[in-house]
Amino acid sequence: MVDIAILGINGRMGRQLVDIIDARDDCRVMAGIDATAAPGAPWPMTPTMYGLDVMPKMPDVLIDFSHPTATLDALEYCAERALPCVICTTGLDENAKAQMRQAAESTAVFYSANMSLGINLLNDLIRKAQAMLQGFDVEIIEKHHHHKLDAPSGTALLLADTLNAAAGGKYSYVYDRHDVRRERGPNELGIHAVRGGSIVGEHEVLFIGPDEVVSLSHTAYSRNVFATGAVAAALFMAGRAPGMYSMTDLMEAL
Amino acid sequence: MVDIAILGINGRMGRQLVDIIDARDDCRVMAGIDATAAPGAPWPMTPTMYGLDVMPKMPDVLIDFSHPTATLDALEYCAERALPCVICTTGLDENAKAQMRQAAESTAVFYSANMSLGINLLNDLIRKAQAMLQGFDVEIIEKHHHHKLDAPSGTALLLADTLNAAAGGKYSYVYDRHDVRRERGPNELGIHAVRGGSIVGEHEVLFIGPDEVVSLSHTAYSRNVFATGAVAAALFMAGRAPGMYSMTDLMEAL
Amino acid sequence: MVDIAILGINGRMGRQLVDIIDARDDCRVMAGIDATAAPGAPWPMTPTMYGLDVMPKMPDVLIDFSHPTATLDALEYCAERALPCVICTTGLDENAKAQMRQAAESTAVFYSANMSLGINLLNDLIRKAQAMLQGFDVEIIEKHHHHKLDAPSGTALLLADTLNAAAGGKYSYVYDRHDVRRERGPNELGIHAVRGGSIVGEHEVLFIGPDEVVSLSHTAYSRNVFATGAVAAALFMAGRAPGMYSMTDLMEAL
Amino acid sequence: MVDIAILGINGRMGRQLVDIIDARDDCRVMAGIDATAAPGAPWPMTPTMYGLDVMPKMPDVLIDFSHPTATLDALEYCAERALPCVICTTGLDENAKAQMRQAAESTAVFYSANMSLGINLLNDLIRKAQAMLQGFDVEIIEKHHHHKLDAPSGTALLLADTLNAAAGGKYSYVYDRHDVRRERGPNELGIHAVRGGSIVGEHEVLFIGPDEVVSLSHTAYSRNVFATGAVAAALFMAGRAPGMYSMTDLMEAL
Repeated sequence: MVDIAILGINGRMGRQLVDIIDARDDCRVMAGIDATAAPGAPWPMTPTMYGLDVMPKMPDVLIDFSHPTATLDALEYCAERALPCVICTTGLDENAKAQMRQAAESTAVFYSANMSLGINLLNDLIRKAQAMLQGFDVEIIEKHHHHKLDAPSGTALLLADTLNAAAGGKYSYVYDRHDVRRERGPNELGIHAVRGGSIVGEHEVLFIGPDEVVSLSHTAYSRNVFATGAVAAALFMAGRAPGMYSMTDLMEAL
Repeated sequence: MVDIAILGINGRMGRQLVDIIDARDDCRVMAGIDATAAPGAPWPMTPTMYGLDVMPKMPDVLIDFSHPTATLDALEYCAERALPCVICTTGLDENAKAQMRQAAESTAVFYSANMSLGINLLNDLIRKAQAMLQGFDVEIIEKHHHHKLDAPSGTALLLADTLNAAAGGKYSYVYDRHDVRRERGPNELGIHAVRGGSIVGEHEVLFIGPDEVVSLSHTAYSRNVFATGAVAAALFMAGRAPGMYSMTDLMEAL
Repeated sequence: MVDIAILGINGRMGRQLVDIIDARDDCRVMAGIDATAAPGAPWPMTPTMYGLDVMPKMPDVLIDFSHPTATLDALEYCAERALPCVICTTGLDENAKAQMRQAAESTAVFYSANMSLGINLLNDLIRKAQAMLQGFDVEIIEKHHHHKLDAPSGTALLLADTLNAAAGGKYSYVYDRHDVRRERGPNELGIHAVRGGSIVGEHEVLFIGPDEVVSLSHTAYSRNVFATGAVAAALFMAGRAPGMYSMTDLMEAL
Repeated sequence: MVDIAILGINGRMGRQLVDIIDARDDCRVMAGIDATAAPGAPWPMTPTMYGLDVMPKMPDVLIDFSHPTATLDALEYCAERALPCVICTTGLDENAKAQMRQAAESTAVFYSANMSLGINLLNDLIRKAQAMLQGFDVEIIEKHHHHKLDAPSGTALLLADTLNAAAGGKYSYVYDRHDVRRERGPNELGIHAVRGGSIVGEHEVLFIGPDEVVSLSHTAYSRNVFATGAVAAALFMAGRAPGMYSMTDLMEAL
C-alpha cells in the first residue's frame, strides 16, 4: 500500500487523481495540500507542504499538480526530507527545471513533458519504426480543440524531435506547402496542426513508403490520462534512490 | 449497347478505359484514335478523329483522355457531327474551356474537374453536412504521393470552395498555424497537405463540434477510378441533347 | 428567449442540459422537475410535473431525460396542457411509444432513437451515398466501451436499417465471417462491434468500390452530444403545432 | 552489386521483382528461370534451375516466387550448390517446410509468412505496446477485397497469435458479439474481418484503455510491397551462412 500526498488536490487534476487512486487497492490518498480549502475532505488537509510534518506519518511519495511557484516550494521540501516526488505541473521554466535537477541530488524526482503512458509509448515505437522503414516519408498530424494557443502541440514537437535525433538531425520541419510547386524532399518532416471543437488531443505519425503506410497514433478522450500516468509514476517512485526519473524509466520497468 | 470511341486509347488511361469497358456488357469499344500505333488491336484504329468518318457506323459517344491539342480537334469534330463527348484530358486552359462551351451549342459535352464518382459525391455531401452542423469547425486533410508538385491538391481546393460558397464566402483558408499563438477563429478553414510515398489520393473533410466529430472521406487506391467515372459519364451522355454536362448532372440521374 | 423545463434535472444528463442552456442566450432553464431534491438550485424545483401548475408562467417546452415511468406521466401532463415536449428517455417500450403518438394528437412531441445531431446527419448522408455508389460494398464498424451490453449498437442497426430500406431490403446483415471460406456476396452488409476501454461511441459506414472507398463516420467524445441535440430540439419545438416530430424534421428546418 | 536469379520471373510477382531491382543500383537480375518463355528478355532465361549451371557465373542469391512444386526443386538445387535463397511462394505444406529446414543445413534459406516489411514491423511493435499497456483491451480490424476466401486474414491471425503468446495465452479470439448481452471480458481479443471492393490489405491493432486509444496500423496499396520485401531479403541473404532466416533477422540487421 503506497501512501500518496497530493499537492493541488482541490484543482481539476487533483480531483481526478483522487478518483483514480480510490479505484485502486495498491495505493491511497494519505494527505491533501492545497491553498484552497475543501471542508469535509476524507483525508488530512494542509495549506502548505509543511503541514505534512505534523502528520502521524510521512507519505511514500508526493504528486504535484499545482502551479510553478508551489512546485519550487515542494521541490525544496522534498529534497530536505528525501521524499520522492512526481512533478506534473506544466509551464515550468528553465530555472524550475534546474531546481528539479538540484533536488534530484537529494531525493527521487520524476518529470516528463507528457504524463500519458500512451504518448510515451508512441514516442518509443516511432524510433523503432523509423529505424526499420528506411526511405519512408514521415509526416505528423495532430488535432486539438480550437482554444489551444500553440501550434504544433508540444507533444508533436517532442515526437518530431525524437525522430530527428534518431535520424541524425537530417530533417527540416515543414508546416506549410501551399503555393510552392515542388516535389517533397526526403528530408522533409511535415507537421500538421488541425484545430477544432473540443478535441482533447490526437497525434498520428505516418511512415509512408512505396505502396504501403504504417500509422502509429494516440487519441486521448479526456485529460484523465495524465492523472493515470501520474499515479503509475507515483507507484514506480515509492522507495526509489535519489535521481531524475522519467516515463522512459517507468516504461522500462513495466 | 453503347458504342464508345476512345481518343488516346494507347495511353495509360486509354488502356484502363478498355479494361473497364470490356468488363461490362452494356457498352463496347467501337474504335480507337491514337497518334501512336498499336498493331493487333481488336478494334478499328485511326490516327485522327477523321478516321471515324470512314467506319461503317459512328460511335454513340467519344471519351477523350489525350492532350489539350488533340482535345481541341476533337471538340471541333464532335460539334460538326453532333457526337456527344466526355472530355477527361487535364491541363485545359481557359481557351480550351471556351471551345468546350462553344461546342456544347452543337453537341453534348461532359466535363468535370475530377472524374471520380466518389469525390463528386463527397463534394455533394459536405454541402449538406455544413448546412446541418452550424458552428462546427471545418478542416480538410489531403494526402498524395511525394512527386506531386502542387499543394494543396486541386480537389482539396474544390472541396474548400464548395464549403466556402455554401457559407457565403465567410472562410479564410489557413495553411500554416505554427509560430502563431492564437485561438482558432470560427471563420478559419484549415487545409493540410500531407505528402509521402506513392499515395494515390486521399481527401478527408472534418466537421468538428463540441464533443463530436463528423468525418467524410474518400480514398483512391488507383487512377482507375477516373476511368470508371469516365465510362459512367459516357453511358450517361449517349443520346443527350446539346449542352454542357457535369458530374452533378450524372449524379442526379443515378 | 425560450423557457425550458427539465424533467430529470438532477440526473447526469439533466445537469449537462443545464450547462448547455446556461451557455446560450436564446433560452433558459425555467423550472426543474426531479424526485431527487437538490437544495440551492437557482430555479424553481418541483418533484412532479404538477408543480409546474403553480408557477407564475408555463414553460415553452419540456425536455424529458428521466425514466419510462416518469415519461408516461409527462406525456399525459403535456397533452392536457398542449405543452410541447422533447422525449429523450431511453428504454421506452411499445406501450410508451403508443402513448407518445396519442399525446401527439394534442401537443407537439419530439422523439428520435438517437439525439445526436451528428448521427442523424450521418443517417441522412448514407442514404444519398448509397444511391450514388451502386455496386459498392457496404460495411459498418462501431466502437463502444467495454461495459456496453448490447452488440451491435442500436445506432449501428439504425444505420443498417436505413441502408437496407433504401436498397429495397436486399441486404442480409453479417456479423461473423470466420471459418467460412467464401467470397463476400453483394447483398452482405457487414456489421462489426468493437468493444474496449471507455470509448463513448464511434460509427463508421464504409462504401467500398473498385479502387476507391468513401467513409462517413461520427465520433462522440462525451454523452454531452445527446444533451446538445436535446436543446436544439427544444428550441425547434417551442410553439409547434400538435404532432410527432423527429430529428429529420429538425434537420430539414436548419 | 548483388546478382539475383528469379524463379518465376514471368509471373506477376516476378515482373514486379524485376521492376524493383531495375530501380536500384546495388543489385541486378542475373538470370530468369521460368517454364513459360518470354522472348526478348534482357537477361539469360532458362526453363529450370539447372540452366544456371551453364551460365558464366552463379548468382549470389535466388528469389523464388513460383509454385510449391518448383520450390521443392529449387530447395534441392540451392542446397547442393550452397546458393542462398529467399522462398516467397505461398501455399507451402508441412512437407515443403520440412524440406526447407533440411536445405537450411546446407545453405541459407529465408522464409516468412508475410514478406511485407511494414507488417513485420507491426508484428514487432504490438508486442512492445502490449507489454506497456497493461489492462488495455485489444481489438484487431482487418480489411480485404471481396474476393478473399478466408477470414480473418492469415496476417490478422499472425498478429493475434503474437499478442496471445506474449500474454501467456490468456486471450480467446472473439469473432462475433451480436445477440449476446454481455460486457466485454478482459481476456477477449476481438477480430473483425471487413470485406469489400478491391482493398489490397489493411490491418489495425487497437489498444483501448481508459480515456485513451493507441492504434498501430498497416495499409498495403499494392502487392508490390511483397516484392519489395523479397528484394530486401535477397540483399540481406547474399553471403550468409547456412541456416533458416526470417524477417525478424532482417529487421534486426537494419
